[in-house]
Amino acid sequence: MLVGEHMTSPVITVEPHATVSQARKLMQDHDIRHLPVIEHARLIGIVARSDLNWPSAAKVPPDAMPVAEVMSGNVIAVTPRTTIENAASLMLANKIGALPVVDEEEHVVGILTAADILSVFLEVMGVGSGARRIEIRLPDRPGALAPAVQCIGSLGVNIVSVVSAREQDGWRSLVLRLATDDLEPVLTALADLGVEVVSTGEGDD
Amino acid sequence: MLVGEHMTSPVITVEPHATVSQARKLMQDHDIRHLPVIEHARLIGIVARSDLNWPSAAKVPPDAMPVAEVMSGNVIAVTPRTTIENAASLMLANKIGALPVVDEEEHVVGILTAADILSVFLEVMGVGSGARRIEIRLPDRPGALAPAVQCIGSLGVNIVSVVSAREQDGWRSLVLRLATDDLEPVLTALADLGVEVVSTGEGDD
Repeated sequence: MLVGEHMTSPVITVEPHATVSQARKLMQDHDIRHLPVIEHARLIGIVARSDLNWPSAAKVPPDAMPVAEVMSGNVIAVTPRTTIENAASLMLANKIGALPVVDEEEHVVGILTAADILSVFLEVMGVGSGARRIEIRLPDRPGALAPAVQCIGSLGVNIVSVVSAREQDGWRSLVLRLATDDLEPVLTALADLGVEVVSTGEGDD
Repeated sequence: MLVGEHMTSPVITVEPHATVSQARKLMQDHDIRHLPVIEHARLIGIVARSDLNWPSAAKVPPDAMPVAEVMSGNVIAVTPRTTIENAASLMLANKIGALPVVDEEEHVVGILTAADILSVFLEVMGVGSGARRIEIRLPDRPGALAPAVQCIGSLGVNIVSVVSAREQDGWRSLVLRLATDDLEPVLTALADLGVEVVSTGEGDD
């Protein structure tokens, strides 16, 4: 779960002397919202679509204004070996929607967006696997997960994903996705174990 | 893991006759990027900060233009009982950064943003729990997870999170976060089980 496995690469970039109009057109043509700015192949900034809003009071027209004037220069970058979790933390803490990815020479090798992390989230949650969703509650202590997992495995049902949702009052809520067409034997076996099933299926829609 | 547990509520909204300038000020004052538009307490649209960019060619100034003219009217909403996974899928498929949350009467009861989902992702990944991260590889078949989970539980180590990262060639990569100061006994026990540990710690930063 490293950035290098989930980033978009190669990445569309601009040079600092490109104009605001050119940057806008690049974003439109490629349906993207962020462009790393590179000079001599090294990262020096990033422009977001919102940086290209043109105030009606501006004296220089967008086809004469260089990107260097409107980019964010103090850009937060990650490397291909940054964990996806660290990348998500950086985006949240800095309220940014994209992180350029650089190698040891600060050459831009990719870009990771909030949308890429949403995709990882869906993968982690087993969405799109065709598996059935169940949510269970377990005591929040060592060994609590093992009997439930073993019981499901012993029924020959593959656990596509198991995710700890939240903790409250010494309990933990878990979402599992199971590769089976028939949840009934699993529900029966979990009930025999004394495991509470909070819900099955996909909520109300 | 339902929207109702993770949305922002109450939510700042505007009425359709509010001006673009007023909407901009609301976003600035509250440091937000999206405002649901409501009429007679019902959702009729949404405005994003980027909808409030003012083209220099516009004939009506922003303090005279009503929000109704620039909002997206065909708004995608969810309910408090929508799963977080479904909400993430909707954002990705429609390239939107926020979903208004409505009750049965289409009254707006909250808003869920991509940032809220990033927070759920971090919670699910056990980030901030102080737990240690290890990544392991297991065969992608029923019962493969049970011995590893049981072995860790039998050492008295609580599994804070376990997440299936990706599948390849019949193998699955999993990220676990373990509530322990000393990973060594776990690594030894997993090695004895024949479980491959891909990495420990937080990547390169």
